[in-house]
Amino acid sequence: MNVLWVFAHPEKESLGGSLFDDGVRFLGETGHDCQVSDLYAMKWKATVDREDFTEEPDGRLMVAHASGRAYESGTLSADIRAEQEKLEWADTVVFQFPLWWYGMPAILKGWFDRVFVKGFGYLVPDPEVEGRFLRYGEGKLQGKRALVLITSGSSEESLGPRGINGELDQILFALLHGTLFYAGMEVLPPLVVYRADWCTPQQYDETMARLRDQLTRIDEMDPLPYRLESGGDYDHLDGALRPEVASGRSGLTVHYLD
Amino acid sequence: MNVLWVFAHPEKESLGGSLFDDGVRFLGETGHDCQVSDLYAMKWKATVDREDFTEEPDGRLMVAHASGRAYESGTLSADIRAEQEKLEWADTVVFQFPLWWYGMPAILKGWFDRVFVKGFGYLVPDPEVEGRFLRYGEGKLQGKRALVLITSGSSEESLGPRGINGELDQILFALLHGTLFYAGMEVLPPLVVYRADWCTPQQYDETMARLRDQLTRIDEMDPLPYRLESGGDYDHLDGALRPEVASGRSGLTVHYLD
Repeated sequence: MNVLWVFAHPEKESLGGSLFDDGVRFLGETGHDCQVSDLYAMKWKATVDREDFTEEPDGRLMVAHASGRAYESGTLSADIRAEQEKLEWADTVVFQFPLWWYGMPAILKGWFDRVFVKGFGYLVPDPEVEGRFLRYGEGKLQGKRALVLITSGSSEESLGPRGINGELDQILFALLHGTLFYAGMEVLPPLVVYRADWCTPQQYDETMARLRDQLTRIDEMDPLPYRLESGGDYDHLDGALRPEVASGRSGLTVHYLD
Repeated sequence: MNVLWVFAHPEKESLGGSLFDDGVRFLGETGHDCQVSDLYAMKWKATVDREDFTEEPDGRLMVAHASGRAYESGTLSADIRAEQEKLEWADTVVFQFPLWWYGMPAILKGWFDRVFVKGFGYLVPDPEVEGRFLRYGEGKLQGKRALVLITSGSSEESLGPRGINGELDQILFALLHGTLFYAGMEVLPPLVVYRADWCTPQQYDETMARLRDQLTRIDEMDPLPYRLESGGDYDHLDGALRPEVASGRSGLTVHYLD
């Protein structure tokens, strides 16, 4: 398979850097093709601004419109186009980062802000239905798999169902569901290294074994069972679950199939 | 009161820009002192890297340790120190941004990543208990109020309790609870402008009226009722809710007082 590995850590001499190096090496040794986006090494520009849209006229900048025009005309800045090409090439994308303030480092959030432009990440027209747009299970990245790999200083309990930091797949809902699944990807359960600052050599070996296993079986693993927008569970007018679906319930878990 | 207004929008000629201008003007007219951090205008550096810690020796960069040392010794880079001084001066902080991928623009995430350093935002020692750290309702920013002001293209229903995009205060849990409340702030319910791209002049006036009302009554408003870590509801060893609290429940809402 073709794997894109997006890595957002400021220090290669770290637990995260070792997992990245060993993971990429494993993919090569097992016959897979791998491209990497080492965002710090690339000095990735984190902030969306006018420079992303080189052909945009002066005057008021409307980011969605400007990005859509630049995407359609092939005039997005070269660094953004390169990332989009990698995504188109990939079957599987690994997103690896240290959990900072219970989310992505800014450099990775800015990768999504800049690469997932109108027409590519959102407002992707449905070729079959005029005026409809593909999202939440459909879109340009449909069928590709996403694996989120996280290192965190927190304990497993504190990121668990009743943990003070919030349950991990819920605090990452905007990424897992609102970004990756939104753009069409099949999203695997995150692979997490807890208490990363205290990782022993034995724990490192166990983590690498889990990572190798998941990379090997990635096509067989069950993605998070989010509901398709087009599956009939949502009201198309207001974007809420129909009353008869997950009846009487609310909160982020209603968006998982029962 | 002293208000810091942190604004993260790439275009001042926008709905968000108008709310920012009119909000800051209103504070001045009503006798409050206001400082602003207009992150795009400041060309705020979004990415944590070695340059933030000018005195750090070459070699392996460990962000938490390096930031803690630089904070203690007063050698954090000048732009970070200026933001920390504004926070110390403020009674109330407004965080205003367009909702991008159901979260903050990278430039604002990077403001938290860079400003909320070890010793200031996290791992703040409890002066009374050796080895204990202040967080989740206690900390350097304790007693200050945070108001999050968001413009979104989504409808209210789609960001509601059963909306496909996820309920807003839950998809922002990492910011509201995991960052602002973590650092000690009292967090008000977010003020949201839905379907921002279709805002009419009448809706704008209504939004400004709501904003003026909230700024006027900010000391009387009830913050989100998150549980204090020190309140006895959490197990100190593993950071999970005690079994008898919100018994049998899980998910982000267990962290709200009943």
